[in-house]
Amino acid sequence: MRVLVALGGNAMTAADGSVGPGDQIRAAETAMSAVADLVAEGVDVVITHGNGPQVGNLLVKNELSAAVVPPVPLDWCGAQTQGTLGFVLMNALEAALAQRGIRRPTAAVVTRTRVDIDDPGFRKPTKPIGRFLPEDEAQVLMEHGQHFENRGEKGWRRVVASPEPQEILDAGAVTTLADMGYLVVANGGGGIPVVRSDDGRLHGVEAVIDKDLGAALLARSVDADRLVIATDVDHAIVGYGSDAAEPVGEIGVEKLRSYAAEGNFASGSMGPKVDAICRYVEQTGNVGVITSLGNIVAGSRGESGTVVVPS
Amino acid sequence: MRVLVALGGNAMTAADGSVGPGDQIRAAETAMSAVADLVAEGVDVVITHGNGPQVGNLLVKNELSAAVVPPVPLDWCGAQTQGTLGFVLMNALEAALAQRGIRRPTAAVVTRTRVDIDDPGFRKPTKPIGRFLPEDEAQVLMEHGQHFENRGEKGWRRVVASPEPQEILDAGAVTTLADMGYLVVANGGGGIPVVRSDDGRLHGVEAVIDKDLGAALLARSVDADRLVIATDVDHAIVGYGSDAAEPVGEIGVEKLRSYAAEGNFASGSMGPKVDAICRYVEQTGNVGVITSLGNIVAGSRGESGTVVVPS
Repeated sequence: MRVLVALGGNAMTAADGSVGPGDQIRAAETAMSAVADLVAEGVDVVITHGNGPQVGNLLVKNELSAAVVPPVPLDWCGAQTQGTLGFVLMNALEAALAQRGIRRPTAAVVTRTRVDIDDPGFRKPTKPIGRFLPEDEAQVLMEHGQHFENRGEKGWRRVVASPEPQEILDAGAVTTLADMGYLVVANGGGGIPVVRSDDGRLHGVEAVIDKDLGAALLARSVDADRLVIATDVDHAIVGYGSDAAEPVGEIGVEKLRSYAAEGNFASGSMGPKVDAICRYVEQTGNVGVITSLGNIVAGSRGESGTVVVPS
Repeated sequence: MRVLVALGGNAMTAADGSVGPGDQIRAAETAMSAVADLVAEGVDVVITHGNGPQVGNLLVKNELSAAVVPPVPLDWCGAQTQGTLGFVLMNALEAALAQRGIRRPTAAVVTRTRVDIDDPGFRKPTKPIGRFLPEDEAQVLMEHGQHFENRGEKGWRRVVASPEPQEILDAGAVTTLADMGYLVVANGGGGIPVVRSDDGRLHGVEAVIDKDLGAALLARSVDADRLVIATDVDHAIVGYGSDAAEPVGEIGVEKLRSYAAEGNFASGSMGPKVDAICRYVEQTGNVGVITSLGNIVAGSRGESGTVVVPS
């Protein structure tokens, strides 16, 4: 069985949100311990990961050094985090496997994801990234073509496109390696966003792909038998914050879609995870799971977490 | 025939040394045009690349943002450049191939290279990196454990270990992909330097691996039939700067070693390339070539450049 495990970018930071190299390494060790437990069950794992906090740091570096060193665009920031997190996750996974007496090769693949230049996100960017800036600094960047929103007292914040992932361009390399027994880290941050121009060339674009929607497409593209989205809670919750709040266990995909349509899942957090899992289940007829990192072994078996089945 | 092509980090910058994203993309297009010509000859190519100027930029960013964002170590900088340059080189190579009516998949693999913690380089660092700093700024960093050398009027410059590459840990993934027809970008910057501790775990280290020595080891590890080191001159030169200056054409490896022992090749530039080519030829019995990027097709045939044969 091949399982695609999607980790949040926050799964690679300290509990207090710190994103220093040591914080990321320690958090990766915790995450890969859970993944190694899954591998110990005989499961072939492909790993993808978010990169929000990591890209946030790179954007600050761009900003503070722009007078001396040319800033790099968002697609490059994504590529940079695929390098560092691929590196850190491979080391941590190999160590966790060795502790369990398992020797499996790992690999990390630089992964590009094609998006559509006509995606509505490019006309009306909505995804907030980077830190809050005072109005005058935001104005300078807006004159350079960046989009900002006034968030009141906190200041101004950059917004970028979050286009639909259309195609995981490097899924073939991931599949090839997975077929040969590699445990592969791929499509970090939802993939490096590229568009294909009329002459066929690929160009990076200033955008952020939702990592869970990228994971759903990657899971299909590498023929994963199951998609497990690992988060910080054991289940999606309906009626969150109300007296009727209830964890969602095993559920048909249509029912989950109807819960989502009722607005049960927050757009910045559980919403895209639910959408991603529903897409995967609808398009493959396989089971998809949302659960906590510590719960992914039982979750992969469909015995725990929000287990979404075809309806 | 499988050829490992090693590109200098300077092959990915503008002629004036600029290292903005656009500069790197345009330079990569030039380099990949030459590589596509080689692929058009029916050659399977594995590509590796330097990253000196790119890491230089990342170090400046570390420095200028250290008060706000945690700096990342040198091994992470290397991983970051493997991400960006892998991304840029794949795009450029695919475009150059398409222009020639060739469709071959590409891949970029995050590649770790094991070094020995007892390497003399760690006791006495000698490889200069980053920009020159005034003494007071260097002093602060020296108190944090970094090594600096006083370079007189230009200021102080950081020096780090440049340890021997012992093992390309991710060569298996590169070989697997190359065997399946992928044109693979790998081991950028000589590989992300890691040491293995007594408990078997891998840890990144603050070091810079010579990209040509890394290329020689990668070439052996992926069973390349030929190593071509692409640089900005057509040949190595003996007696450089003297009346007796002469380009080196086809030459036995022992003879080239004796030229090197006489001090014909500068330690920071042609020296490591000659050493790398000699190692490859001695250890494999294959032919190794040093030539200019524009010359790699004829060079790969052994018809041009400094063509080093077993003696």
